[in-house]
Amino acid sequence: MSETTSTPGYDIAYQGAPGAFSEDAALTYASRAELIGPRLLPCPRLDQVFDAVALGRAVVGVVPIENTLAGSVQVCYDLLRERDLTITGELVRRISHALVARPGVRIGDLKRVLSHPVALAQCTEFFRQHPGLEVVAVYDTAGAVSQVIESGSVTDAAIAGRRTAVVYDGEVLAAPLEDDPENYTRFLVVEPMSERIGSTAVEPAACKTSVVFTLANRPGALHAALRHLAEHGIDLSLIESRPRRGRPFEYAFYVDLAGHADVAPLDIALDGVRTESLSLDVLGSYLRQRDLPAPGGS
Amino acid sequence: MSETTSTPGYDIAYQGAPGAFSEDAALTYASRAELIGPRLLPCPRLDQVFDAVALGRAVVGVVPIENTLAGSVQVCYDLLRERDLTITGELVRRISHALVARPGVRIGDLKRVLSHPVALAQCTEFFRQHPGLEVVAVYDTAGAVSQVIESGSVTDAAIAGRRTAVVYDGEVLAAPLEDDPENYTRFLVVEPMSERIGSTAVEPAACKTSVVFTLANRPGALHAALRHLAEHGIDLSLIESRPRRGRPFEYAFYVDLAGHADVAPLDIALDGVRTESLSLDVLGSYLRQRDLPAPGGS
Repeated sequence: MSETTSTPGYDIAYQGAPGAFSEDAALTYASRAELIGPRLLPCPRLDQVFDAVALGRAVVGVVPIENTLAGSVQVCYDLLRERDLTITGELVRRISHALVARPGVRIGDLKRVLSHPVALAQCTEFFRQHPGLEVVAVYDTAGAVSQVIESGSVTDAAIAGRRTAVVYDGEVLAAPLEDDPENYTRFLVVEPMSERIGSTAVEPAACKTSVVFTLANRPGALHAALRHLAEHGIDLSLIESRPRRGRPFEYAFYVDLAGHADVAPLDIALDGVRTESLSLDVLGSYLRQRDLPAPGGS
Repeated sequence: MSETTSTPGYDIAYQGAPGAFSEDAALTYASRAELIGPRLLPCPRLDQVFDAVALGRAVVGVVPIENTLAGSVQVCYDLLRERDLTITGELVRRISHALVARPGVRIGDLKRVLSHPVALAQCTEFFRQHPGLEVVAVYDTAGAVSQVIESGSVTDAAIAGRRTAVVYDGEVLAAPLEDDPENYTRFLVVEPMSERIGSTAVEPAACKTSVVFTLANRPGALHAALRHLAEHGIDLSLIESRPRRGRPFEYAFYVDLAGHADVAPLDIALDGVRTESLSLDVLGSYLRQRDLPAPGGS
């Protein structure tokens, strides 16, 4: 937050390499925002995405938050608080894996398959059917394709999204490769605090609000906090408890709730939760995406 | 579960390479279990650890579950259910990072630093102080050290645990490197169902129980389920909601609770939660480790 350039050089920062699932999410965001020829900034690390937005190099960041190939809820939420950013949107993208190699290579030629550990874990059935293949875990899926194609190897392949074959001049040998077709990743759109979506700009019923609160360490504390949400009929679509960074004996609770933080009944319900909590931060109120998995109650 | 060998060839299966934090956890388990000269089985993928135990190749598996460099709660819990394994213990290990390179190399010589993305994200302060360093994210911390030493490079270093310097004949250039000294990873010990710890074998008050339950999608459902825990004064040390694999519109809740699942008051409280749930599975009751971050209430 030390320096801010007046005109951001990039529209969207994301983590990963061109062809990565995060780039696909960034392009989806650009299309929904009707940005023509969006200027994308690929960042090797997640904190660099947050820095790019906080320092004004990029207008928004698109970061994975659930079922993710990089980062985690805790890291993302910690970064949101540290960089004073706010969540202004979400995107849910279907993740489907393909086996990509140099053109002309056949599955029978392969000795090694490279990919991110999470992607490899999502394709266990393929490896059961091809037990002779050596598994090589690398940083990211798109990077694995880039590495396989550039190396010139005819015995290596990578697991990644289909689009990487186009980006890196490879060929899809097999797809879909994932065990479970219901494979989604949820991405958040993050922006500076000043861009927080006001309660009058959107329909509150179509909104979702992300909140983090900390509780005293006693039985029933969470139940007491959730009572305020239940009493006001607030839908809860995510809850996670996490040890607090630097405070090993305290837990923070991350929750996603239906509604806008400034509008009844959520504003009243949050006031109630606040009375039970050591601290409560609203991380953002934003338009809920329709094809999200449904809530699990509060 | 298709074939079972009568005498396991290994005592402990873990994910990662020799020198990895998971190997350290496996050795800690061996020491507490008073195993002399434990036979360790390193596995490239997390599901291979579960397979090794389920098929009887290894007696137990040690897997990371929180603040992890590989795997995630969801993957671990899904694998526990799929492979019919049970949690029989937990281990909490402090994670501290060191900068490791070939002997004789100095920090000023370095051009690149290799490590796992999570480890890199935990050392952002070091990279701010050395902005010229290129960050290269790879699969695992120990593998990064192995790669740096074997390559013979005098401009590469890796971020990993100190012990990797001994294992791979490297040298520690700087330590500790992590931003936050309170950096812990929690590991679970997993075994076949038949090894489940009975309620008479241990002191229930010293136990912890991991449970997964699914709820109908309506506001207040979680609050109603937690009421049974609050009424019986049950301490809750972890809660996570996850979309269910293959059921995109249902959520499962993973909780860790104080007590043994077969002993009052937890057995009665769980009967209450069961009446509110579509399904409830006990993943294991096991001895709580004392130096765990404390609970956040229920």
